[in-house]
Amino acid sequence: MSSNTSSPTDLPDDHFHEECAVFGIYGHPEAANLTYLGLYALQHRGQEGTGIASLENGKLLLRKSPKLVSEFYTEDLLNDLKGNIAIGHNRYATAGGDPEKDLQPLTAFYSKGPIALVHNGNLTNAIELKREMENEGALFTTEVDSEVLVHLIARSTGMTMVEQMGAALSSVKGSYSFIVLLENSMLGVRDPLGLRPLSIGKIGDAYVLASETCAFDLIGAEFIRDVDPGEMVVINEKGMESHKLFVRKDAPCIFEIVYFARPDSQVFGYPVYLSRKRLGGRLAKDSAVEADLVIPVPDSGLAAALGYSEASGIPVDMGLIRNHYVGRTFIEPQQSIRHFGVKIKLNAVPSILKNKRIVVVDDSIVRGTTSRKIVSMLRAAGASEVHMRIASAPIISPCFYGIDTPTRTELIGATHSLEEIRRYVKADSLAYLSVDAMQEEIERAKDQNNSRKGFCTACFTGCYPIPFSKEERIQHGLFEG
Amino acid sequence: MSSNTSSPTDLPDDHFHEECAVFGIYGHPEAANLTYLGLYALQHRGQEGTGIASLENGKLLLRKSPKLVSEFYTEDLLNDLKGNIAIGHNRYATAGGDPEKDLQPLTAFYSKGPIALVHNGNLTNAIELKREMENEGALFTTEVDSEVLVHLIARSTGMTMVEQMGAALSSVKGSYSFIVLLENSMLGVRDPLGLRPLSIGKIGDAYVLASETCAFDLIGAEFIRDVDPGEMVVINEKGMESHKLFVRKDAPCIFEIVYFARPDSQVFGYPVYLSRKRLGGRLAKDSAVEADLVIPVPDSGLAAALGYSEASGIPVDMGLIRNHYVGRTFIEPQQSIRHFGVKIKLNAVPSILKNKRIVVVDDSIVRGTTSRKIVSMLRAAGASEVHMRIASAPIISPCFYGIDTPTRTELIGATHSLEEIRRYVKADSLAYLSVDAMQEEIERAKDQNNSRKGFCTACFTGCYPIPFSKEERIQHGLFEG
Amino acid sequence: MSSNTSSPTDLPDDHFHEECAVFGIYGHPEAANLTYLGLYALQHRGQEGTGIASLENGKLLLRKSPKLVSEFYTEDLLNDLKGNIAIGHNRYATAGGDPEKDLQPLTAFYSKGPIALVHNGNLTNAIELKREMENEGALFTTEVDSEVLVHLIARSTGMTMVEQMGAALSSVKGSYSFIVLLENSMLGVRDPLGLRPLSIGKIGDAYVLASETCAFDLIGAEFIRDVDPGEMVVINEKGMESHKLFVRKDAPCIFEIVYFARPDSQVFGYPVYLSRKRLGGRLAKDSAVEADLVIPVPDSGLAAALGYSEASGIPVDMGLIRNHYVGRTFIEPQQSIRHFGVKIKLNAVPSILKNKRIVVVDDSIVRGTTSRKIVSMLRAAGASEVHMRIASAPIISPCFYGIDTPTRTELIGATHSLEEIRRYVKADSLAYLSVDAMQEEIERAKDQNNSRKGFCTACFTGCYPIPFSKEERIQHGLFEG
Amino acid sequence: MSSNTSSPTDLPDDHFHEECAVFGIYGHPEAANLTYLGLYALQHRGQEGTGIASLENGKLLLRKSPKLVSEFYTEDLLNDLKGNIAIGHNRYATAGGDPEKDLQPLTAFYSKGPIALVHNGNLTNAIELKREMENEGALFTTEVDSEVLVHLIARSTGMTMVEQMGAALSSVKGSYSFIVLLENSMLGVRDPLGLRPLSIGKIGDAYVLASETCAFDLIGAEFIRDVDPGEMVVINEKGMESHKLFVRKDAPCIFEIVYFARPDSQVFGYPVYLSRKRLGGRLAKDSAVEADLVIPVPDSGLAAALGYSEASGIPVDMGLIRNHYVGRTFIEPQQSIRHFGVKIKLNAVPSILKNKRIVVVDDSIVRGTTSRKIVSMLRAAGASEVHMRIASAPIISPCFYGIDTPTRTELIGATHSLEEIRRYVKADSLAYLSVDAMQEEIERAKDQNNSRKGFCTACFTGCYPIPFSKEERIQHGLFEG
Repeated sequence: MSSNTSSPTDLPDDHFHEECAVFGIYGHPEAANLTYLGLYALQHRGQEGTGIASLENGKLLLRKSPKLVSEFYTEDLLNDLKGNIAIGHNRYATAGGDPEKDLQPLTAFYSKGPIALVHNGNLTNAIELKREMENEGALFTTEVDSEVLVHLIARSTGMTMVEQMGAALSSVKGSYSFIVLLENSMLGVRDPLGLRPLSIGKIGDAYVLASETCAFDLIGAEFIRDVDPGEMVVINEKGMESHKLFVRKDAPCIFEIVYFARPDSQVFGYPVYLSRKRLGGRLAKDSAVEADLVIPVPDSGLAAALGYSEASGIPVDMGLIRNHYVGRTFIEPQQSIRHFGVKIKLNAVPSILKNKRIVVVDDSIVRGTTSRKIVSMLRAAGASEVHMRIASAPIISPCFYGIDTPTRTELIGATHSLEEIRRYVKADSLAYLSVDAMQEEIERAKDQNNSRKGFCTACFTGCYPIPFSKEERIQHGLFEG
Repeated sequence: MSSNTSSPTDLPDDHFHEECAVFGIYGHPEAANLTYLGLYALQHRGQEGTGIASLENGKLLLRKSPKLVSEFYTEDLLNDLKGNIAIGHNRYATAGGDPEKDLQPLTAFYSKGPIALVHNGNLTNAIELKREMENEGALFTTEVDSEVLVHLIARSTGMTMVEQMGAALSSVKGSYSFIVLLENSMLGVRDPLGLRPLSIGKIGDAYVLASETCAFDLIGAEFIRDVDPGEMVVINEKGMESHKLFVRKDAPCIFEIVYFARPDSQVFGYPVYLSRKRLGGRLAKDSAVEADLVIPVPDSGLAAALGYSEASGIPVDMGLIRNHYVGRTFIEPQQSIRHFGVKIKLNAVPSILKNKRIVVVDDSIVRGTTSRKIVSMLRAAGASEVHMRIASAPIISPCFYGIDTPTRTELIGATHSLEEIRRYVKADSLAYLSVDAMQEEIERAKDQNNSRKGFCTACFTGCYPIPFSKEERIQHGLFEG
Repeated sequence: MSSNTSSPTDLPDDHFHEECAVFGIYGHPEAANLTYLGLYALQHRGQEGTGIASLENGKLLLRKSPKLVSEFYTEDLLNDLKGNIAIGHNRYATAGGDPEKDLQPLTAFYSKGPIALVHNGNLTNAIELKREMENEGALFTTEVDSEVLVHLIARSTGMTMVEQMGAALSSVKGSYSFIVLLENSMLGVRDPLGLRPLSIGKIGDAYVLASETCAFDLIGAEFIRDVDPGEMVVINEKGMESHKLFVRKDAPCIFEIVYFARPDSQVFGYPVYLSRKRLGGRLAKDSAVEADLVIPVPDSGLAAALGYSEASGIPVDMGLIRNHYVGRTFIEPQQSIRHFGVKIKLNAVPSILKNKRIVVVDDSIVRGTTSRKIVSMLRAAGASEVHMRIASAPIISPCFYGIDTPTRTELIGATHSLEEIRRYVKADSLAYLSVDAMQEEIERAKDQNNSRKGFCTACFTGCYPIPFSKEERIQHGLFEG
Repeated sequence: MSSNTSSPTDLPDDHFHEECAVFGIYGHPEAANLTYLGLYALQHRGQEGTGIASLENGKLLLRKSPKLVSEFYTEDLLNDLKGNIAIGHNRYATAGGDPEKDLQPLTAFYSKGPIALVHNGNLTNAIELKREMENEGALFTTEVDSEVLVHLIARSTGMTMVEQMGAALSSVKGSYSFIVLLENSMLGVRDPLGLRPLSIGKIGDAYVLASETCAFDLIGAEFIRDVDPGEMVVINEKGMESHKLFVRKDAPCIFEIVYFARPDSQVFGYPVYLSRKRLGGRLAKDSAVEADLVIPVPDSGLAAALGYSEASGIPVDMGLIRNHYVGRTFIEPQQSIRHFGVKIKLNAVPSILKNKRIVVVDDSIVRGTTSRKIVSMLRAAGASEVHMRIASAPIISPCFYGIDTPTRTELIGATHSLEEIRRYVKADSLAYLSVDAMQEEIERAKDQNNSRKGFCTACFTGCYPIPFSKEERIQHGLFEG
């Protein structure tokens, strides 16, 4: 490319990225169409590729593409995906993977027939397992960790399918919520910690599995319950059976509540919107500041900002407007434009902000680069004071359970003090929540009174619920810094 | 298509549709790239097609497509659009037009060289003018009304360009904000009523024209002023000159403030977001109701809902969540799903709504079909009472000035009483604003104290600022009902 | 593009390029589908774009694209082109034109309704006419010369359509075979010299017009006769009427016989294949040489080579094999490959050529570059002697009647003697036919005994059948050299 | 699709279909570009998909698509395929396969690193081997028989790569010419019978493998020799080594000479064009008939027709003209057109054929449907007698070695007598060659005097060089009829 041309740029987004949405349906004449709609509702969990596999008379049908759900699926395509069983997947591309080859569902044929699998999570010992199986003659065709699972199932020698799955999964470490399509059944499994969500719904007689309940709402399915940590549900002609494969040690990912899940979902039993609003309310109590306006960073900070406003009595206003037509990349001119990357998504409104002391509320800070631009935009639009409030704790450790996080050295919360971060983002004041405060508020958002043993808060605390081998610690850079 | 397959459906949206965004830039080395960004910021004004024309050494370059801005333009394409002058357009397809042929910019060659034109508005006597010119041997190649303007300019016999434009425009009726690209200049013109917006900005030495100021914000241009009603600005090497072609009789479209414009724009001198918030506040005063929560219909009702909440003291909550990944169509299953069309865009959140008396705030009602589904969704999610508040007056008349409106008989406000509408949408109560209240509040949103003669409120009042001939009245169905 | 990458290259082809195929059908329920097939059969006359316009209930439908017929048209697209009247076009892009904008059919609306036009030929005074009409206020939207015709028709003031067309065409100079679609009729016209072909066929009750008869063969239409030079046929509900617009002065293009037309067509009353075979036979008589094998340059030299072989008694062999899967461009590696451009299309076969004295027969030489590579390939494959025989006369003048020819200075026949050309192409001997011999042999190929006044042989003789004004002579460079 | 619309139809072609072209290059900086050109030259061996894999620093890069070579590869795509080793493949889709999933090269990762493979042939025991390996836990991701080979290589336990390949291949039956890409080497292997071709070439220091020598001609590579039956060549940094894996029992496919190979290739040591010409000459001697003209069915019957003409003294003429712009499908109108399917590709020329007694020469007859249409077209064009001559023996048995043949019951030669076939195709006389005559003539076409043990002639004789198990005989229907 010659040096005097513009070039397309990825839209910056200083957030953790979820790696997947999964969806499955068994026993519905429009299985592929409903899977498509489910993936439509779950688009926020992965925008770099999507796929659906269906099964008709033992024949596996598959379509996948590195596009958005709304761009890829057509009527003809869905009509091709015949059968009354289907599973689907949305994904984020991980570094190094091939955007075309490494999409899910994964499909294969093994001794028992066809198999298709979708996975949300991360198998932390996938590389070791892969090496072992390769030494025994196995072939791998993708760089997706879930391919290890398909091999384990194909090699498993238990008498019953439940035994086989138990045997296959007992060698796997990490987080997983996966759905498997077999010739006559659909399986849904969560790891013993239940790190990633997976819920069960019903539409008529058909069973549905989905990462989040918002998918059920769209297709008119009734939410039944979550798959339990360590549980496998088997859905076939006779209905649904539950099998405890492993003892549950609940440690669901707190970040699903903080940022990932859609606000209209209920995840791990918690209503997401109300949880976020409570986090914002607590922030107002723990880190009050005198101000004229509360300004959310849309859309991720909206619920917390409303909570902050309600608790503090400071009115909320949409001083940052989001352009809802942005694509995944844009073509930047050569001549630099101030705050450009953020400005294509957000615009600050001078008529609201001028001469106002404002509290700007966001859900989290990863690298701090976007926050810095936002503060600067708010000031350029006339804000006289900018107080930043973050409705979660500082992120100090990477995630190894299915979230695409930068290395520790890139996490501003891991490498800088609160005051240093404040100075970097150029806010007049900056406050986070404590991890304890987060857990308390989220528990209070729940209307039922069922006890919870607690969340995985590794990204905020560095305490990982799955012990690492020494090799893994080195490999993951946990000794660094 | 066989009867047992699903079929793609247009996403319903019970709003008026603007017909265009226009953008132009003169004297910038990255003219096409900045035009692309301007159209990016103006995508909300038209999503059914986009185009850019640039001019280099007298050669007209043109690219247009029935796609979104973020989908159509690529780096290579923008690099092909050489030259330091460019104009661009986003459009809604009007009924009967060809989605490929009838895109803008329109381009042609005439006796003075190349010409390109983009237009926002509607020429009410275009058909008559077209017939006259055809009888004199003129050829028309599109069904776009603006093609009449290009012909008028080519046939105009004035001595100077200003005289020519004056002559050409003196035979035209209706609304127009257009930008013309000529060999050595760019023109911007607004009709004498100033029905549609057109603003002037500057980036370095380059002049920019755009439908809304949010386009200036994105590219870092400074807002200078609006083109005045009846004014033509001529931009060339020497700078910008102003010419009064017609006596101004200000009647800018009030619906730009109510719904069309982006909330971060300033339109006709009014800050859009604050105007809408004031409309919501007035609604709370004029039509108070006892309730637990204010729920905006996102995103169009958000500003008014915040105003309602602030004025009433009733807390606001996001009880309707919008899916921001929806495309223009979706593939509906055959088995019907309740509230489907609305549900793919909006989801009601039971944990927020359950057993709550709510005030749901939207900007306007056209046919009422979407409002009815929204009320029903809110009740299904547990709301005990649903009071609907509309931050504008009932729509009783179609628009002939560049807005795509249904015929009178389809406008629920034209054919039903308030009580009948309330029963149709199944709300516990329903209130609109009066036209006077609207005008008062919008004036108050303005921080300068410059007097305004008033808006075009034809859609709310049936009083059209341009007299119709008898033929036009019949043709437009103004005698119906 | 960085310097160390390969780049796509146009496939070289040292031939004149025809500029168009035209096809029209009136009164057939599958008008668009048959037009598509007709264009399929006429693909050799233009491979850089294709289009079809059909008319249904006064509505013009149009699809065009810079693709091949077999690549562009789909079932859905043809089904969209409703109506029982359709016209179509294949074209070569001329220099300077826009490959997307300047495709035909041209369509417009004028005072009498819709009009569509396809054209094969070249209007030599198009630029003057265009300037005149622009000065009267006309707008041009393409750079196609045929747009002038559409304007002339729209402006024509005769009482009847025949008078209008006569008036419109009387101001036009040059070559033209065109088909016009009007609301209730289809017209076919040839210029007074009949430079380009246009034939009339019938399929059931429907009339068909096509550039060549091979299009009739494919769709099962019966060949009726050619449109006469200076004649206009009007086809409508009542059948076909003939109108003599101008006195005919027959001068059909001899190059249609030499190279352009498909060998299975009958053009201007001459069977193409047999004419070419006779040209080869005459070459054997006029320029005999002792040799072991006759080798055609496939496919253009095949018929002449068979004629040469038959007349000389020297056996013919396919010593040059053509790859029939070549596209319009290929991606050449950086490291140069000998004779690459020619070799991707032709390969010399050593087992045939080794130690053989060969006569290589081709239809014509334009620049000589390809001939030189072919001779070199034949020698590299082992040929001991290479005698080149060309089944036409040396090309010494450009064509202004619808053929894309280089300027005179690029024509090797215009600038070099026979011996110089022989040395350039590195043949052991080289011979052409004389123009008289060509005319004699072509006349003999005809089985009927109708007299012919003679061909346009301007490219071989420099004698143009239409007098040029002095300006045109300068503009065309006819004084050069 | 409603009943009154046209529909796309596959172009009929009554020939056997080869299943693959393979190409590989080791040690060239433009490996992918040359592979693309090699596949370009080999397009005739497979037109339903193409793919290239390259290797750079241990990273496998892969692009494949169900398109033609000239349609799929772009400059950008080739630039992405970095590395100085590459292999490529063109294929025919076999029934049941997925046109997208079942393309080659196949790629995988196994214990020794990346592996890519392209294959021409057919493994007759692939299904059994697949079942065995599935029972041991193997996963298959395509329905390509070659995937079995990749698994066998991955599972092979020999000490050296040569031992591993020998072990892997010793369990395989059928025909195979394959190329394997490994981290540091490229392998080329032919089965012990040498059923399918595979030649070795050199371009500078780089080694090239290709199905046919015409690929070497295009890229300027020198032909070295064929890979021997039963031989494996290993190409790496040190050069090329040869390993005899199996004892050769030469039985190369005679149909490569009769029809598949490009006439300019040398296959199994035979010059293809001259072999075909000799077959035509023999036909003239063995089955003489009084006639006026020899007419080839282009292009497959051209060489034989020239041989027939030379031997008989009857002149040859191109009475059937081929349209070289046909795609893979066409859209047929509803109203039937006589001989339509054939006519889109071939047109008979009345001016040549009228009142002539003709000998029409083709290479082979499979079902007879096309021959019947051709005879009928020739008569409709005026031929007074039509004598059909086929330059090979009647086809009586299907092929199991990599050629896509119909079942026995569809082979007209297997189910009808010569006289019955003559009556079916409606020829005045019909003659084939004997298998012995074919073998004699092909041997004579060779200029060297190396002895040959003979061809696989199973399709003409039913004698298969590889014994079938009883199950295979039943499965293949060899007992039928």
